[in-house]
Amino acid sequence: MPLSLNDAQTVIEQARAHSDDLGVPMNIAVVDGGGHLLAFARMDGAILGSIDIALTKAKTSILFDSPSENLWEYCKPGGPAPATEYTNGGLIPYAGGIPLHDETGTLIGAIGVSGGLPAQDGEVARAGAAATV
Amino acid sequence: MPLSLNDAQTVIEQARAHSDDLGVPMNIAVVDGGGHLLAFARMDGAILGSIDIALTKAKTSILFDSPSENLWEYCKPGGPAPATEYTNGGLIPYAGGIPLHDETGTLIGAIGVSGGLPAQDGEVARAGAAATV
Amino acid sequence: MPLSLNDAQTVIEQARAHSDDLGVPMNIAVVDGGGHLLAFARMDGAILGSIDIALTKAKTSILFDSPSENLWEYCKPGGPAPATEYTNGGLIPYAGGIPLHDETGTLIGAIGVSGGLPAQDGEVARAGAAATV
Amino acid sequence: MPLSLNDAQTVIEQARAHSDDLGVPMNIAVVDGGGHLLAFARMDGAILGSIDIALTKAKTSILFDSPSENLWEYCKPGGPAPATEYTNGGLIPYAGGIPLHDETGTLIGAIGVSGGLPAQDGEVARAGAAATV
Repeated sequence: MPLSLNDAQTVIEQARAHSDDLGVPMNIAVVDGGGHLLAFARMDGAILGSIDIALTKAKTSILFDSPSENLWEYCKPGGPAPATEYTNGGLIPYAGGIPLHDETGTLIGAIGVSGGLPAQDGEVARAGAAATV
Repeated sequence: MPLSLNDAQTVIEQARAHSDDLGVPMNIAVVDGGGHLLAFARMDGAILGSIDIALTKAKTSILFDSPSENLWEYCKPGGPAPATEYTNGGLIPYAGGIPLHDETGTLIGAIGVSGGLPAQDGEVARAGAAATV
Repeated sequence: MPLSLNDAQTVIEQARAHSDDLGVPMNIAVVDGGGHLLAFARMDGAILGSIDIALTKAKTSILFDSPSENLWEYCKPGGPAPATEYTNGGLIPYAGGIPLHDETGTLIGAIGVSGGLPAQDGEVARAGAAATV
Repeated sequence: MPLSLNDAQTVIEQARAHSDDLGVPMNIAVVDGGGHLLAFARMDGAILGSIDIALTKAKTSILFDSPSENLWEYCKPGGPAPATEYTNGGLIPYAGGIPLHDETGTLIGAIGVSGGLPAQDGEVARAGAAATV
């Protein structure tokens, strides 16, 4: 089953709740399994430059079917695949993007979060992603 | 007062309600007064190609502080400013984008809607924009 | 069911056979339901400038879930949606792109063909698309 | 002699056979001597983000008439030409791209492979390139 808009909004709501707990306003994007935008919310006070980063983290998670930070093992200095973060029109190799799968394991979307430190972004993304489990 | 996320979501909710009345699923974007994305919703079944068009209609309305279709008078064949629709990385010169102003007349954002015929998109955008009045 | 590579290659084989009948070498692209490239073949002698056009016709068909030429009714001079062909990073509003659906009606991909006159491109695309029926 | 489509498909078939042996699904691109796309295949299960990387490895091999990983000696930290990997709209400085030459040594194309670890991509690319020897 593809993600519905209601599903996507539930993902965003849970991510927002966790952001409120942290006290850090976030940009939160949800895309479908092909990487096309489904829903987005910029929380009051979230950094403008993080809009694009949230969108790109979601894209990164779709393109590699993996949390965005996993890309770092490949593209980091000394890693086997330097400059991979500059492919595909730009990728983000740190935390905040999480792929979403249905009960059959099919990739149905991703959440991308940006606005805090990467560790915070990743925490909020996982809180949002948990809504689809 | 800048638009809050709650304001933007109310704009989207009213636009969605009108789309449901028309029976045409829409892509609905709300941007702030600087044109930066605030909130977005793709209704179930809305056309993928209209995501970019909804975003671009909102951008068009911010850049000209005007409903997107007003651009047509300038850029249409025989008009005074042909090709203006290709400036600014691409603009949309038909209905579906509406600027949002606060009670002092300050431009605080825009809604962009795409998914139906331009007349339907414009109707839905106006329904959404009415939420801020 | 998503398109497999074998499915995509069958689509290309049938399109090639029809191109051979016409005597016009074509560029033939097959993308998945999210618009991501699955398979491509440039027939010997096909025009280089048509590689991008074939890819863009497939994209157009995914984004509007429609044969690429249907876009023309919207964006043509006097049509309701001028300049739509310049959205989404560029679209093609003439024949040669056909969406592919599974037996449940789900959009699972598209074929894009370019190299001849648009009418020929459309004929070849339909011959390829028939492989998925 | 330029590469024919049949040649390109033989290259892809041999690369696919080696990918099957490794058990890693790959994206495989073949371009002509000018870098223009000739044939492409995404094996079932191959990573979406590797489509662009496969295409870029083939481009890298054409532009430097060299296996893609040779670029690393120039652009690596401490190397003589840092940031070269960001020229030409983006290059890939690790294994998976191999130039193809005819019996006179003329550059007639390249294969680009991505989907596994760089060492695996390079192995598969060499298996494909061997088809033209």
